[in-house]
Amino acid sequence: MASIDLNSDLGEGYGAWAMGDDAAMLAVVSSANIACGFHAGDPAGIFRTVKAAAEKNVVVGAHVSYPDRVGFGRRDLDVTREDLMADVIYQIGALKGLAQSAGTSVRYVKPHGALYNRIANDAVQGQAVIDAIKAVDPSLVLMGLANAPILELARQSGLTVVAEAFADRAYTPDGQLVSRREAGAVLHDADKIAQRMVQLARDGTLEAIDGSVIRIEAQSICVHGDSPGAVAIAQQIRQRFEAEGIEIRSFISKP
Amino acid sequence: MASIDLNSDLGEGYGAWAMGDDAAMLAVVSSANIACGFHAGDPAGIFRTVKAAAEKNVVVGAHVSYPDRVGFGRRDLDVTREDLMADVIYQIGALKGLAQSAGTSVRYVKPHGALYNRIANDAVQGQAVIDAIKAVDPSLVLMGLANAPILELARQSGLTVVAEAFADRAYTPDGQLVSRREAGAVLHDADKIAQRMVQLARDGTLEAIDGSVIRIEAQSICVHGDSPGAVAIAQQIRQRFEAEGIEIRSFISKP
Amino acid sequence: MASIDLNSDLGEGYGAWAMGDDAAMLAVVSSANIACGFHAGDPAGIFRTVKAAAEKNVVVGAHVSYPDRVGFGRRDLDVTREDLMADVIYQIGALKGLAQSAGTSVRYVKPHGALYNRIANDAVQGQAVIDAIKAVDPSLVLMGLANAPILELARQSGLTVVAEAFADRAYTPDGQLVSRREAGAVLHDADKIAQRMVQLARDGTLEAIDGSVIRIEAQSICVHGDSPGAVAIAQQIRQRFEAEGIEIRSFISKP
Amino acid sequence: MASIDLNSDLGEGYGAWAMGDDAAMLAVVSSANIACGFHAGDPAGIFRTVKAAAEKNVVVGAHVSYPDRVGFGRRDLDVTREDLMADVIYQIGALKGLAQSAGTSVRYVKPHGALYNRIANDAVQGQAVIDAIKAVDPSLVLMGLANAPILELARQSGLTVVAEAFADRAYTPDGQLVSRREAGAVLHDADKIAQRMVQLARDGTLEAIDGSVIRIEAQSICVHGDSPGAVAIAQQIRQRFEAEGIEIRSFISKP
Repeated sequence: MASIDLNSDLGEGYGAWAMGDDAAMLAVVSSANIACGFHAGDPAGIFRTVKAAAEKNVVVGAHVSYPDRVGFGRRDLDVTREDLMADVIYQIGALKGLAQSAGTSVRYVKPHGALYNRIANDAVQGQAVIDAIKAVDPSLVLMGLANAPILELARQSGLTVVAEAFADRAYTPDGQLVSRREAGAVLHDADKIAQRMVQLARDGTLEAIDGSVIRIEAQSICVHGDSPGAVAIAQQIRQRFEAEGIEIRSFISKP
Repeated sequence: MASIDLNSDLGEGYGAWAMGDDAAMLAVVSSANIACGFHAGDPAGIFRTVKAAAEKNVVVGAHVSYPDRVGFGRRDLDVTREDLMADVIYQIGALKGLAQSAGTSVRYVKPHGALYNRIANDAVQGQAVIDAIKAVDPSLVLMGLANAPILELARQSGLTVVAEAFADRAYTPDGQLVSRREAGAVLHDADKIAQRMVQLARDGTLEAIDGSVIRIEAQSICVHGDSPGAVAIAQQIRQRFEAEGIEIRSFISKP
Repeated sequence: MASIDLNSDLGEGYGAWAMGDDAAMLAVVSSANIACGFHAGDPAGIFRTVKAAAEKNVVVGAHVSYPDRVGFGRRDLDVTREDLMADVIYQIGALKGLAQSAGTSVRYVKPHGALYNRIANDAVQGQAVIDAIKAVDPSLVLMGLANAPILELARQSGLTVVAEAFADRAYTPDGQLVSRREAGAVLHDADKIAQRMVQLARDGTLEAIDGSVIRIEAQSICVHGDSPGAVAIAQQIRQRFEAEGIEIRSFISKP
Repeated sequence: MASIDLNSDLGEGYGAWAMGDDAAMLAVVSSANIACGFHAGDPAGIFRTVKAAAEKNVVVGAHVSYPDRVGFGRRDLDVTREDLMADVIYQIGALKGLAQSAGTSVRYVKPHGALYNRIANDAVQGQAVIDAIKAVDPSLVLMGLANAPILELARQSGLTVVAEAFADRAYTPDGQLVSRREAGAVLHDADKIAQRMVQLARDGTLEAIDGSVIRIEAQSICVHGDSPGAVAIAQQIRQRFEAEGIEIRSFISKP
């Protein structure tokens, strides 16, 4: 029986500000990338989110970011290796504390936003993230972009890695994400997206933007929950997977 | 042979800003209250501090604070129980991550500044701090003000507590700190301070501001390091203790 | 013809986080209390808000706060006079810069949240706010709680003041707000609220929670816009005022 | 009689943290680049600095930065034009408010750190800074790096510009700063530095790192004050200028 992980960004409110529908997404996903306070998430809000994830048996990951709350971690920042390593350890540690207090634990790390994009290809910042994970808890899995060099770099450094595909994104013939600046980069048709993800989960393939069929090795699918449309797409994927007998299951054996 | 712990606030720089002489103090104290980022301390600076503490076999404590960097955690803040508990867990977790990455571990918690003063007598905020410690790691010791109600509250909640005295502060006849607003509240004569601390370590007594001799049950003495004068006082205490055969030793058996 | 000002809190998003329906409220109110970055509002978001207010000829006020973004300025903070005065000047100055760049100007100051409540009765912090306004621009009007001592204090200090009533709050027989902890403190019936506000605008009176009729001298009415229900209430008040021939007009002659 | 402006970065403390010797530098310089809160400076500290500058008749400039306090504004940040423009207006406005409250006014803008370096050559971010200045107060002078394209861009946009040279930096034969990564980039000999600055003030020339004499059109000289050595260099320049009859005078006719 085919199975795959579904992950989503959660806990992205801050103080009085809400973002996304965490409750709806926790009913859909098997893995929750939880903000750690640097791009989003205040301690009390993160604590509520890890408690909710624990109740739903959703696996918790640390969604670490550059320190840029006002920019939501989406702006490239020229951090030193030393600063980045410490920033990542700090965030993982903080989330571990809250997760443990909620009766669960942090099992993986997924860098967020600009940091995610930067380390996909930047070996200096990538190594700093890897070194941080190895220093604080080498059993943590690093989740990264399918086909990106960071995955091999992490593997060589001794980390377990998980590659993820993006449900609502188009791919180039060589297995890269189509840039958001290009037409057709973001998919909106829930039916078509769900169909693509079934193919990905079953065969490990996707139709690229030029119509060719490409291989994407991914153990997890990222779905979004920050708009009603995004939640609906995520729910559609889950329903389709259930109908097709594809199990949604974390890459971690137990939370 | 008499022995007592010496503790000091360390890691209180922030980014490009330095504060205090951490290297000098690490040669004096047995316990380091390390800032966790809410009143002071950025991740890279905290990391350097825990590494230095680990090298010197100084025991690491979490110096948790209200979230008030611009006020250095010195301003009373009306936080809810829920927010305070999560804030404390977050800080302890972050420091645990950095400490573990540096090859040491967090062994105790000392609230900082306005939070320290508030919980000395405020059972609501005090219980939130206690609950945070119990949730994240009940083996952590709570360090608090000698003779303050928080110590008994924590003990009843099942925590191990350590009472501390302040080397450079005068005491009232009933064992309370003389308010900083009163004349004579802060002592400056290094010789006299060292002599007082010898008496405290040996006999558990101090001369109060009215000349009476009072009993202060303290397992730790707080010394400051944020000015040249403060470092000199701390060094004088250490030298005097060594001359008098009083061992400076953490209340934790090993770091 | 009767007339009164309607004011609302606007620009309370922060970076990627939205709050309230500013566009809807700008169609209702005559005065916009715009966040200045300390409890809410990032520069780009504030700039968009002042531009939108300028387009709608809505008068701009500075919604100054304690520096407490994660607590949304709702937590009491023991600031010194010196810090508070500088914090208020800084916020007013920043908003003046953005307002002027948007072709409008700041005409009044309304403290936010915990600071609003604190200075209603606290002459020390109240005077710091007054001194800040006088230092940076004595032509700015201070908006405060009807019947609160701050208004008289500000008047004596030479400031022009505007008293405001809260549309959705119950009042005690002596003209104070019923505490939110009491049953019936917050009103929800849009019809009844609109009717009360008509009476307030026409006669300067309201029915207190005990049924007695009290006098409230208010030149402005505060309406909320942070929930669909709140927007509906605000719109209902506007419609009712228009139907009854009560003009909604700023206390400032022109923006 | 030759004259030139001396400028220095001031007000770079933050809350409890000090940086540099502002009092010493205010006795040396004619222009103070005052931090606006984004890389350094809290409102109360900025207020004290503008008051001290006013007392010394030192002209006040806004030292605007990326929003990156923990990185002291020294890290490149990929901000959008819209965000950068609003960030700059916000900072200028805040400083204008404090300056006006202190009886002085902001007369120029000098971007700080990574923003300074970025806009020297980046026309997109450079134009955003220019647009911000024009929007909030087109009478403000933009201070920028001598020989950098930003100066011409600003001039074409209608701003008055001032070019500055760095007292303690070596120059390439084509009038650029030698990169800090190169040997000899930073000068330390106070005598030699003072001599170079006399030549710059008198003849508009400097000896480049290869021994050639180059022309540097600069109306201001930047001196540092964040270390005892830097203060000593600044004082030496002033003494030498006084001995040589070179007047230290702001490019602004009166503060």
